[in-house]
Amino acid sequence: MSSSEAVAAPEPGSLFLSEIRDQPHALRRLLEYEREFERVAAAARKRGASLVRMVGHGSSDNAASYGVYAFGLLSPWTALRDSIALTVYYDRVFDMSGSTVLGLSQSGQTPDVLEYVRRARQHGAFTVAITNEPSSELAAAAEAVLPLAAGPELAVAATKTYVNQVAALALLAAHVADDGARVADGVRSIADQLEAALPALEAKAKTLASPFQYVGRMFVIGRGPEFATAREISLKLLETCRTAAQPLTATDLAHGPVAVLDPLFPVWTIASHDETLPAVVEAVARVRQVGATIVASGDAADAIAGAEYALPVPEPTLPLLSPLLSVVPGQLFASALARAKGLDPDRPHGLAKVTLAR
Amino acid sequence: MSSSEAVAAPEPGSLFLSEIRDQPHALRRLLEYEREFERVAAAARKRGASLVRMVGHGSSDNAASYGVYAFGLLSPWTALRDSIALTVYYDRVFDMSGSTVLGLSQSGQTPDVLEYVRRARQHGAFTVAITNEPSSELAAAAEAVLPLAAGPELAVAATKTYVNQVAALALLAAHVADDGARVADGVRSIADQLEAALPALEAKAKTLASPFQYVGRMFVIGRGPEFATAREISLKLLETCRTAAQPLTATDLAHGPVAVLDPLFPVWTIASHDETLPAVVEAVARVRQVGATIVASGDAADAIAGAEYALPVPEPTLPLLSPLLSVVPGQLFASALARAKGLDPDRPHGLAKVTLAR
Repeated sequence: MSSSEAVAAPEPGSLFLSEIRDQPHALRRLLEYEREFERVAAAARKRGASLVRMVGHGSSDNAASYGVYAFGLLSPWTALRDSIALTVYYDRVFDMSGSTVLGLSQSGQTPDVLEYVRRARQHGAFTVAITNEPSSELAAAAEAVLPLAAGPELAVAATKTYVNQVAALALLAAHVADDGARVADGVRSIADQLEAALPALEAKAKTLASPFQYVGRMFVIGRGPEFATAREISLKLLETCRTAAQPLTATDLAHGPVAVLDPLFPVWTIASHDETLPAVVEAVARVRQVGATIVASGDAADAIAGAEYALPVPEPTLPLLSPLLSVVPGQLFASALARAKGLDPDRPHGLAKVTLAR
Repeated sequence: MSSSEAVAAPEPGSLFLSEIRDQPHALRRLLEYEREFERVAAAARKRGASLVRMVGHGSSDNAASYGVYAFGLLSPWTALRDSIALTVYYDRVFDMSGSTVLGLSQSGQTPDVLEYVRRARQHGAFTVAITNEPSSELAAAAEAVLPLAAGPELAVAATKTYVNQVAALALLAAHVADDGARVADGVRSIADQLEAALPALEAKAKTLASPFQYVGRMFVIGRGPEFATAREISLKLLETCRTAAQPLTATDLAHGPVAVLDPLFPVWTIASHDETLPAVVEAVARVRQVGATIVASGDAADAIAGAEYALPVPEPTLPLLSPLLSVVPGQLFASALARAKGLDPDRPHGLAKVTLAR
């Protein structure tokens, strides 16, 4: 590389960090498409397509974990993360006329998500592409398109497209129950809260980078809607920091994995003010007994006694929307930790932005 | 402790190992209840309860991952691992008259599984308890009971109750499609194959204990029905060996976690002869590129080039039943590794047989 190219190259991690910072704006851009959500929800209702099958990989699949709760809490419908393999590799697809399919893909190019959506549509499902690329193949293959409108995402590790997927699933579920305006207002407030909180969160997350530099393994604990957050923070740490982070629900932890903990095995906890908080607090009490280092995050971080580090976020007006805020300290921590380790979170080793692997 | 008590105490890990060895017999005991499976499947069909909602924690939840494929491949029904939190903690439960609920619990005492089943039944679901304790509270709360018939399981980490849950889900799914006899024959053959293979597998698994003694983290890769196996082997390693093992599908691996691998981060692969084998082979090729140690297991272990260790199992007469065999090398490896580390797999640190945590 010539020295002039070296000067022109962006600072490692600058894309990742600028896309984290762009998230309040990304949420506001999504809200411009509120009418699309209303229309798609009405179409799904009219079709009686009340079993919601979500498909996606990586961050998109993490967002789908949130979708289970968005539909479960806001609508009378059941949503599931469907098996892509059954339909695409085992060629098992039946009458899907009672199903709404949500194909989640930032690029709209993920091959087996595209193939699943095609087959589901042939078998009667109402198919919806939720993508950042409304002119993609996936968008063309689906009956309806919901744009993520996150703006260009150039870092390999997803940030603002994940957050907009979470918001999109909440908006769609709310419109199914004719409750869209309330949830859109909630998302709007979160954009403001996040914008105000970001500088302090960024500074706070940086202080954790040095003590976690030589940590090889972590658990990330969340329950209910925050299990999606636990999955997404774990994925950021795996992708950008080479830290083996494993997401668990508070209950998973108690059913075995707690046995692996020791003082050198830190646990990141997402505690939010909702019905599952007592279960999370109970689980963390067991973590404390074995002396593991605890990071308390979420809007109820204060409820976690004995945490060595706290990264609280503002409390949203709608508790269901807390994952839009609680993922951000994890993203910022990954950004700071990667840089402390000399890694480039914009271009992690061995990964490409669009994954074509099946 | 007096010396006479010390003499009377069982050898650490002897329960765990003897329960692994008992699995062929446990499968045969389950087959004595074939008529029950036929009856329950007929009742579910008659009710039109064709959305299968499975609930359980730990190994029971891992078996439910298999259930998604058992119903998906053997029947026209959709099965999902349902959220317990939505129903029990968030108090969201709607008309469930189109659903069959399968409550999975070895002890039949898991509090929130019990509560979920009670509420689902009140809301019209056809409820079935699948438990090793047919006189438990869970069995009393459900409309129908399918006994696991695994015999007493005394080690804290589940083995034969997991295998019998997997077989039970295959039998039930097959009876839904009037195909029960074929699958029962398949399970019977596996009991014989496993009995014949166990001594050699046990000796082979022992040879891996020494090189893995200081391994802190691992991935376990499986796809389709074998994702359940990947989850269950990971859980055994976490519980009994204090090794941070994380289960991933072959596709999950490509969508980020591959970036964390290096030569000191081994990957256990389950390769079985079925439609997902090419995806697994492709994923392992990427693992090899980064120099990570590979353990190849499953009935297609030979298809994994460049594996440092191979633990093949016999090929079943029905490919769908391969998880009944492929989990066993992982159980035996956990048993040998725990002993090599001076741990007692019968009574892992901080765990109890019946987990009451929520």
